[in-house]
Amino acid sequence: MTTIRAAVDDDRDAILSIIAPVLRAGETYAIDTDLSDEQILDYWFMPAHAVFVADDSGKILGTYYLMANQRGGGKHVANCGYMVSPEAQGRGLAQAMCEHSQGIAKNRGFLAMQFNHVVSTNTRAVALWQRLGFEIVGTLPKAFRHPVHGLVDSYVMFKTL
Amino acid sequence: MTTIRAAVDDDRDAILSIIAPVLRAGETYAIDTDLSDEQILDYWFMPAHAVFVADDSGKILGTYYLMANQRGGGKHVANCGYMVSPEAQGRGLAQAMCEHSQGIAKNRGFLAMQFNHVVSTNTRAVALWQRLGFEIVGTLPKAFRHPVHGLVDSYVMFKTL
Repeated sequence: MTTIRAAVDDDRDAILSIIAPVLRAGETYAIDTDLSDEQILDYWFMPAHAVFVADDSGKILGTYYLMANQRGGGKHVANCGYMVSPEAQGRGLAQAMCEHSQGIAKNRGFLAMQFNHVVSTNTRAVALWQRLGFEIVGTLPKAFRHPVHGLVDSYVMFKTL
Repeated sequence: MTTIRAAVDDDRDAILSIIAPVLRAGETYAIDTDLSDEQILDYWFMPAHAVFVADDSGKILGTYYLMANQRGGGKHVANCGYMVSPEAQGRGLAQAMCEHSQGIAKNRGFLAMQFNHVVSTNTRAVALWQRLGFEIVGTLPKAFRHPVHGLVDSYVMFKTL
C-alpha cells in the first residue's frame, strides 16, 4: 500500500538516495551536477518547498516538492518537481504524485500549476504531464545543455487547476 | 552624459528610491508588495544578481540586475530586470540598459536571455523587448494578479544572443 504524505526528517536519507543520482546525471533538472549530499538536501528542502514522499509500507519510492512559482502577483501559481526511485518506475507513481500535488495545491489556494523547464528530451515526462492536462505553453529554444544531446529545447508547461 | 556601470554601495539609496515604488505598486514584478526597504534591497542585491546603474553625472536614473536564469544545464541563459526612474522615462534608458545587459551577458558567456514573467498589461515593456529582438515564446494564462486589472496573462520572452 503506497501512501503519499508530507516528508519528515527521517525520510532524508531515502530522499537523498532517490534525488542525488537524478540531479547528478544533469539530464532533467536545471541544477548544478556537482552538489554535495548536503547541498542536494538543502535544495530539495529549501524553506519555500513543501516536500512529500510516496511511502510504500515504510519504503520511500518517490518524492516531490511543491512551492509558489513566483511571489507577489504570481503567487497563485504553484510549481512542483517530482522524482521516482528507479526500482519503482512504471508503476504510475509520478502520475499519483502529480495528482496528489494538484490536490494539495488546490487546498492551499493555488489556481494553477506551472513547470518552468521541462527538458524536451524527457519525453516520458512531457507525455505524462500532457496526459494529466498540462499544456506546453512555451518553448525555450536550446535553453538546456543536456550532457549527452547538447543544447536542447525546454518547455514551459501549465495547467489551470 | 549617462553611463551604465556596476552598482556600488553608495548607490543603494538611489536604487531603493527607484525600485521601491515600482515593487510596492505590484503591477510589473512578481514580488511581494509589502517588503521593507531592507528586504527590497536584499532582493535587488541578492548574491546571484549583478547590479548595474545608469548614472547621469552622479544622478542614478535607472538600474538593472543580471543573473543566470537557471543553474546547471540552464545556466547559459541570462535573466534581467530593469527599472527606470519616473523622471527619466521616455529617454531610451530602458533600451540602453537592455542593450548594455546583452553585451555584459555575452561577455560572461551567456548564449541567450529570458524574461520569465513579463506582465501582459505592461505593453510598453513588451513592445520595447520585441523591438530589441525578444520574442514571446510562451503565454502563461492568468499567471499574474494585477492590482487594478485582476488576473492577467504573463509572457515568457526570449532572445538568443
